[in-house]
Order: sequence, then structure tokens, then C-alpha cells
Amino acid sequence: MLNLYFAPGSCALASLIALEESGLPYEARRLNLVNGEQRSTEYLAVNPKGRVPALVTDRGVVTENVAILAYVAQIAPAARLAPLDDPFDFARMQAFNSYLASTVHVNHAHKGRGYRWTDDAAAIEAMKAKVPQTMGESFALIEEKMLEGPWVMGEQYTVADGYLFTLTSWLSGDGVDQTQFEKVSAHHARMLERPAVQRAIAAGKA
Amino acid sequence: MLNLYFAPGSCALASLIALEESGLPYEARRLNLVNGEQRSTEYLAVNPKGRVPALVTDRGVVTENVAILAYVAQIAPAARLAPLDDPFDFARMQAFNSYLASTVHVNHAHKGRGYRWTDDAAAIEAMKAKVPQTMGESFALIEEKMLEGPWVMGEQYTVADGYLFTLTSWLSGDGVDQTQFEKVSAHHARMLERPAVQRAIAAGKA
Repeated sequence: MLNLYFAPGSCALASLIALEESGLPYEARRLNLVNGEQRSTEYLAVNPKGRVPALVTDRGVVTENVAILAYVAQIAPAARLAPLDDPFDFARMQAFNSYLASTVHVNHAHKGRGYRWTDDAAAIEAMKAKVPQTMGESFALIEEKMLEGPWVMGEQYTVADGYLFTLTSWLSGDGVDQTQFEKVSAHHARMLERPAVQRAIAAGKA
Repeated sequence: MLNLYFAPGSCALASLIALEESGLPYEARRLNLVNGEQRSTEYLAVNPKGRVPALVTDRGVVTENVAILAYVAQIAPAARLAPLDDPFDFARMQAFNSYLASTVHVNHAHKGRGYRWTDDAAAIEAMKAKVPQTMGESFALIEEKMLEGPWVMGEQYTVADGYLFTLTSWLSGDGVDQTQFEKVSAHHARMLERPAVQRAIAAGKA
């Protein structure tokens, strides 16, 4: 049995979507980040990084969306959630996911988690000011150069779609008008029509 | 033929090491970041993100270390650079690489590239001050919870080793005393003995 630790509103929604699309049995385990539950002794034994998502398997724990997404796709090949038989296309999918993790999510984190990188209150405020620009520039690149359409990788739906959907959901809160990105907006609407995405959203709020 | 775009002193060294270990023929193509060559029209046509590494293949370009490392391992299976036949171990390797990309490298980037996240000169200085702490905390976690030894994944050398080696090389410049991390330091010394690592370092300086 798989157990996914998540927090509402977090990037763990990407992993929830992948699990719902996979058809694999799993349980969603909610952490309350506001209460600091991710820093509890119990959770640090699961994931010493104190972050979500963390996927607990019979063999151990997998952390980081990039790793969890590829893993779910690999252990549920019938769901066809990644180009598993083509290393080049698999690498393109991974490059997309890694860009979301190490650039786009990091841009977003400078709004609410600037304390990770400075203890200076004025600097934390200064970081927040640039988030609309950095997120806007990242999504302009996604719109113009990366999102093939209708899905991230083109005709094949993959785990990258749930990850993009998750970060697109943050745009309005980050001060970015999503409607300026036509392909991204159409992708977001298309995702909302998928039953697995609807189930993941419901699970992520429970 | 593979062409790897890199810059001296950058994280692209991880991809250079993977290529040297793979035995695949490739050419290393140096970019001069000081001159802003990564922002040239010519290079933006290769990688619109304006970053290194970028691996040009016969089918197109792969960016992001996390993706390139797994790709090189997959297209050179005889070199045994990743646990390709075990999705769980492959996911653990990917989680390690993704942590380096989205947390450790990001911590480091707040020293020299704070302008990515703020335009405020005082805030950029404030960010620099915390880099020794954030890099120290990340490497304490790697030392205590992640690096199995002798290699990252245990007995099997993988592409994650070259990535860890690359970021370990940054510690001293980031104001962190590497010798406090015994396993990490032993890993670094072990890596320096590998002919492929020596070749990659030479290629990365050329």
C-alpha cells in the first residue's frame, strides 16, 4: 500500500494527481503545515527534510515530486503516464518537471518562505515584490517554448501535466494574470475536466 | 554525437562527469557566463532558459542536470550509472538529485545570483549572509541521512555521485568547512581518484 503525505495548497497536489491517474491504491495523509506538523518528530522520521510530498512504499520513502512522479509512472505502466520506452522523451519530461521544481516553485517560494534564505525582515519583503515578475517570466517561457499542447508533452498525457496544473493554480495568488497565457490557461481548463484531477483536488482538501 | 554546453565552475560539471563515466562520445562546448554568452541569441536557440548544462542530441536538447543524468545513465546501460531495473532505487536516486537541484543548488545561488529573486541591493547582500547556514544545514542532512557510502546509493556508483561531488566543491567558497562532514569529505576524496572525474574536471576547465 502507498501512503502519500501532503498538505493542502502545496505542490504535493502534483503527486496526488499522478496517483489518482495511476489507478494504484493509496491513502492520502494530510499534514497541517500551519501547525508545523511537518517538523514533528513523527514526520521527520518519515522525511527528515520536513517537506511534502513524501510517498511511503513497502520498501521505503520516496521524496521530491520529480522522483515521485516518474516512480508512479514506472510502477503503473498500463496508465501510460510517461514515455517509459523512450529515454529521450522521458528526459524531456523530466527536464520539464525539474524546471518546475528548481526554478518555478523556487520563484513562488520567495513570496511565503523567504525566511529560508535570509533572516532580514526587509529582505524578505523585498523578495515578495519580485514574485509576480519571476513567476510571470517562468510562465511566459512555459507558454512560448515548453508546453506543446494539448498536453505538456504533446499528444500523450503525462505526470508533467499534473505538476504544471498545480503550479498554474498558484499564479493568481502570486499576482500574475493567468489569462495572458492562452495555452497554459487552456491546459488548466482541460485538466479540470479530468475525473482523476477532480478526485485529487478533493483528496487534497480533505 | 552528443554536445554538452557547460560553463567552468557551474553545476554542469555533474553532467560532464556522467558523460565521462558513460564512455559515450561527446564534445564539451564551453560558454563564458562572465561575458553573458548564455544570453546570446545563438545559445538561447539551444536553451531558451539561458542556463547550463544543455545536452544537444540528434533528436533535440535535454536541459536540467536531473534529466541529463538519468538520460545518460539510460542510454549507456553497460556503464551501470543508475539502478535502471529497479523503479524504487531509481526513484531514490532521482530524489537525491532533485534535492541537490531544487534545494542545495538554490541555497548556493543566493550567494552570487540573488538578483534572480530581488532587485533590492540590500536584500541581495542580506541573502549572501545566510548561505553558510543554509549550505551547512543541507550538507548536514546529506551527511547524516542521505549519503549511504561509499557512494550516494551505497555500493553502486551512480550519476548522483558526480552531482554530489560538484556541489561539495562549492562548500569552501560558500563559507562552509567541508571537513566537518566526514562521509561527504571521504566521498569527495574518493571521487577525485576516479579517472573519469579527473577527465571531466580537465574538460570543465578547458
